[in-house]
Amino acid sequence: MVEPVYFEDIAVGDSFAFGPLTVTRDEVIAFAAEFDPQPFHLSDEAAAATHFGSLSASGWHTTALFMKMFVAEMQREPARQAASLGAMGVDELRWLRPVRPGDTLRGISEVIDLKASRSRPEMGIVKNRVTIFNQKDEAVMTMVPIAMWRTRPAQG
Amino acid sequence: MVEPVYFEDIAVGDSFAFGPLTVTRDEVIAFAAEFDPQPFHLSDEAAAATHFGSLSASGWHTTALFMKMFVAEMQREPARQAASLGAMGVDELRWLRPVRPGDTLRGISEVIDLKASRSRPEMGIVKNRVTIFNQKDEAVMTMVPIAMWRTRPAQG
Repeated sequence: MVEPVYFEDIAVGDSFAFGPLTVTRDEVIAFAAEFDPQPFHLSDEAAAATHFGSLSASGWHTTALFMKMFVAEMQREPARQAASLGAMGVDELRWLRPVRPGDTLRGISEVIDLKASRSRPEMGIVKNRVTIFNQKDEAVMTMVPIAMWRTRPAQG
Repeated sequence: MVEPVYFEDIAVGDSFAFGPLTVTRDEVIAFAAEFDPQPFHLSDEAAAATHFGSLSASGWHTTALFMKMFVAEMQREPARQAASLGAMGVDELRWLRPVRPGDTLRGISEVIDLKASRSRPEMGIVKNRVTIFNQKDEAVMTMVPIAMWRTRPAQG
């Protein structure tokens, strides 16, 4: 049994890298067809008539791909997974550049704020700044997830 | 040809309703299996061991379902669709309650802030407060998308 990484073990500045993951044209179109069927997410022809110029992924597809990379990495680190209580939300989500079919994404998450919970001593709040990059090391998306994290149990 | 709803036609307090949409167990599991394979998003058995209690949708599935409802409603209103330039991001995304298989979601978007763009006179920035409700009229998610909107072309 791995000792969990508790809230008290986390420091501002800690970072966590995840990815890479390459997104295909079929995946971009399939996600958009189901969840965001705006024409510029469905074909190059429609995108050429907009400021996108060519097919780009739905911004919500990019957030889902962030989660896919992040969870895969967490599941390689059982010590982190054991103490994570999920996220209550996200601040400052920004789509900075289009994500294109064939792009290879990766990300980094850095702790920027830690706060104990007054009402719930069994958990703390961890804010991270997440940046997702493409294969040219351009930032395509940034956000600040607000995660809940288990505190170290009191010694009995 | 419908006259577009330009930035100048939008007022703080304007609201826009969308949905409903019912999410199935198969959809919850399929989304999670692809993008957020944490055990509590994959089976009731695993969820029973967590604070979720039973199967709940990935928060990113809920954002994707928001977009699905929102785009469907936009596509019924060509006047709005013509002047929308997409979103640059989202502030204050909060997952307030679990979304469960069989839940029927709906949403409302209300304009809370309007700002002309100094650098790009052809567009304005529209902030909306979005609330997603379940069939019990409980808010399950809130957020503030930041949309770009075409301004009325100058008369030549």
